[in-house]
Amino acid sequence: MSRRTITGFSNPTVKALRALREKKLRKREGRFLAEGLRLLTDARECGRLPELLVMAAGREAHPLLEAIEADVLAAGGDVIETDDAILAKITGKDNPQAVAGVFAEFDTSLDALDRCSAPLFLAAQALRDPGNLGTMLRTADAVGAGGLVLIDDCADPFSVEAVRASMGAIFTVPLAQARWDEFLPWLRGGSGQLVAASLRDAVPYRGAEYAAPCFIMVGNESRGLPEDYEAACDLRVTMPMRGRADSLNAAVAGAVLAYEVLAALG
Amino acid sequence: MSRRTITGFSNPTVKALRALREKKLRKREGRFLAEGLRLLTDARECGRLPELLVMAAGREAHPLLEAIEADVLAAGGDVIETDDAILAKITGKDNPQAVAGVFAEFDTSLDALDRCSAPLFLAAQALRDPGNLGTMLRTADAVGAGGLVLIDDCADPFSVEAVRASMGAIFTVPLAQARWDEFLPWLRGGSGQLVAASLRDAVPYRGAEYAAPCFIMVGNESRGLPEDYEAACDLRVTMPMRGRADSLNAAVAGAVLAYEVLAALG
Repeated sequence: MSRRTITGFSNPTVKALRALREKKLRKREGRFLAEGLRLLTDARECGRLPELLVMAAGREAHPLLEAIEADVLAAGGDVIETDDAILAKITGKDNPQAVAGVFAEFDTSLDALDRCSAPLFLAAQALRDPGNLGTMLRTADAVGAGGLVLIDDCADPFSVEAVRASMGAIFTVPLAQARWDEFLPWLRGGSGQLVAASLRDAVPYRGAEYAAPCFIMVGNESRGLPEDYEAACDLRVTMPMRGRADSLNAAVAGAVLAYEVLAALG
Repeated sequence: MSRRTITGFSNPTVKALRALREKKLRKREGRFLAEGLRLLTDARECGRLPELLVMAAGREAHPLLEAIEADVLAAGGDVIETDDAILAKITGKDNPQAVAGVFAEFDTSLDALDRCSAPLFLAAQALRDPGNLGTMLRTADAVGAGGLVLIDDCADPFSVEAVRASMGAIFTVPLAQARWDEFLPWLRGGSGQLVAASLRDAVPYRGAEYAAPCFIMVGNESRGLPEDYEAACDLRVTMPMRGRADSLNAAVAGAVLAYEVLAALG
């Protein structure tokens, strides 16, 4: 455990923290950055402590922040104080929140999911927008989903943008990452209904025969789900489209379906 | 009408187009930028033509683009060809789509809304994120809403980010901008039920007594709705929150409610 102050931009710790904003380096380190007292408090309440806490030297005192600081030091972590300019360099924001934490990434293998833990799960395939990904995590938290499965090449859930959009759900919602040819055999190895929002061969989403554990899958923002993925689903449902467009934002479609399934099975 | 080629970064037209990415200059000009063939095609199908069309000189020929070009010239508009580097400067993106259009902003007074035109409307108060705003426009299109009302200081619906997230709904969904002290008297001057997603004094959102025209209002991403705005609503509804958090993304909450109201009234 240690507590120290950093004043130079070229300090190796500053460089290492700044590097966590880049996916490649983040993956190499197996670490990610979460910013702001609210996120860090959410994490602490879920039993997740940062390995490293970075705080603005000129911050206002706050009992929640002091509690996190004490816990991090007690757990053998590091606490660093620095100035606003360096904090801005680390977080890449002009107005950084006064605190950020570095966390070890979680296990995101399919084994991290317990299909008996909840009546519904969310899944996203090739979801590219970190904001959408974070929003789906937040929705998964709200509906009490047993987890979010990221299928194929999705945005990185540990990016600063996704973590921020998740509003803390990154710490509460079990997360799995898998290729389709890993996910489908895993799903079929136990109980589980796979449901897609679809325009092909679909039934109305309201009153459809959902069954627990129900896995609600949405596709890529531009292309939707591949046709063979849809064909592999147990149920294809469609939502009314009264306008010119034939689709919703992926995170929105997932949420509308999730609340319908929650009403049916929850 | 004119058709010309621009090759210099310092060309006044390039500067004027680039300025449309800044809100202050956009408001002064009363013009906004929409990028990509899909958006421009959506616009054309809704009878909206750009005053000015900018195209990459090295683009691939496309019949839909040629149709737009012909219409713009026939309507007395301008067509400009330029290179990828200048197009990137205009759009602010490294990989700009090969075409962008400049449109006159629409009338966004409350008079633009017809409360008899649809059973439901969306409203957002102090919504700050242009992506959320565009997503709400897209949802409004999907549920066949009669419009989206932006209350108080919201993100600019004519920003490049909001236009992009709307996926063309900026051209299809009637849009109004008003202060709360303009909106509420306007609403009370005719029929209209004001509904808020709320945790205070609220009934379950499923099976609530919705009445057309139903105005579904969501609040700011961080603060939600002001307490007195909620108190002024005819109905406060709440959605199940099974997780740690007590809220959803604003655009998601609006969409879940909108689909519920559509099922009840549509």
